[in-house]
Amino acid sequence: MIDIVLVDTNGPGLHEITAELARFVGGKGDGVLTAMIRHSSASLLVQENADPDVQHDLLGWLDRLVPQADDARMGWITHRVEGPDDMPAHIKAAMLPVSLSIPVRGGRILLGRWQGVYVVEHRAMPHRREVALAFTRV
Amino acid sequence: MIDIVLVDTNGPGLHEITAELARFVGGKGDGVLTAMIRHSSASLLVQENADPDVQHDLLGWLDRLVPQADDARMGWITHRVEGPDDMPAHIKAAMLPVSLSIPVRGGRILLGRWQGVYVVEHRAMPHRREVALAFTRV
Amino acid sequence: MIDIVLVDTNGPGLHEITAELARFVGGKGDGVLTAMIRHSSASLLVQENADPDVQHDLLGWLDRLVPQADDARMGWITHRVEGPDDMPAHIKAAMLPVSLSIPVRGGRILLGRWQGVYVVEHRAMPHRREVALAFTRV
Repeated sequence: MIDIVLVDTNGPGLHEITAELARFVGGKGDGVLTAMIRHSSASLLVQENADPDVQHDLLGWLDRLVPQADDARMGWITHRVEGPDDMPAHIKAAMLPVSLSIPVRGGRILLGRWQGVYVVEHRAMPHRREVALAFTRV
Repeated sequence: MIDIVLVDTNGPGLHEITAELARFVGGKGDGVLTAMIRHSSASLLVQENADPDVQHDLLGWLDRLVPQADDARMGWITHRVEGPDDMPAHIKAAMLPVSLSIPVRGGRILLGRWQGVYVVEHRAMPHRREVALAFTRV
Repeated sequence: MIDIVLVDTNGPGLHEITAELARFVGGKGDGVLTAMIRHSSASLLVQENADPDVQHDLLGWLDRLVPQADDARMGWITHRVEGPDDMPAHIKAAMLPVSLSIPVRGGRILLGRWQGVYVVEHRAMPHRREVALAFTRV
């Protein structure tokens, strides 16, 4: 079964989609859930779902590692036509996962106790993001 | 078929699980092996299995890129409740793979000649890490 | 079905393999395409296929983040036997994907409109790179 989940974002941040994934595999038995984001300026991520500070610090670290293109350290950037947040978004999208593969047992995704699945928005403006899903039986 | 492999770690380092994965797919024909680590402060990794210096340098580079939270450069970190090694571990876990998908032919994983599969521990204290496995037939 | 695609590289750069992947899944119905690169000094990547500046800037950023081993900032590197470009190549290979999982519907890979799939060469010398492919039906 193939499906596409839509996520409306509103600037850089993490949007949890664990519940949508659980619903997709519910009742499907044993197999593998595949998720892939159909964009190259946003990412998928599995991260801790307990302390929101973890997400805040992760975004802070990404911004420090990959400054906006109008930052003095990024003067060498050539791709500027879509705004100062676009090329950094592509770089972040290269570093974080574009696809995830998660084993499923008895219709339940085998995430760890503290893991959630997120769409990570890297662009400044709101976007509608598409995540393609597939379930393959073992 | 779904299984879970346990790996006991003892501080930051790489723990090879290639043999466990080979055993899991042995005799299973053609398909795909999925592996996912059920934690957000440790990673899976495919890397060179020849020169141990490669693993040493990779860990050294990660530590230089993501210093401990008590390092002066990390003063902006807010998630400190679990120790100075915890938030850096989450950041490293976001950068390295959480899941791997490896084609299997005739019951053998199609790794390259110099590739091994590893659990990478990012935390300072010993942990028992779980890797969920699945084999899907082509 | 399992296959291996060969890509001849000629120094650091992105080599698009989207057409080869599309051909592999053509006529196969609904399922998941798995691709894995059988090397630890090259990567797979999904990135924008529109503006070539994006690829140029991505390579520039990787080179700035992970300098060659003969750069003064990399004096701590121990793995030097295969040349100054080898250990940085392993580090880059740890950061970018080694495997991708892409949903397929009606024999077409569900990439986004602006996404292409690439082999990223991290080594200075020409290499023949192998990408293992598998298609699993949903």
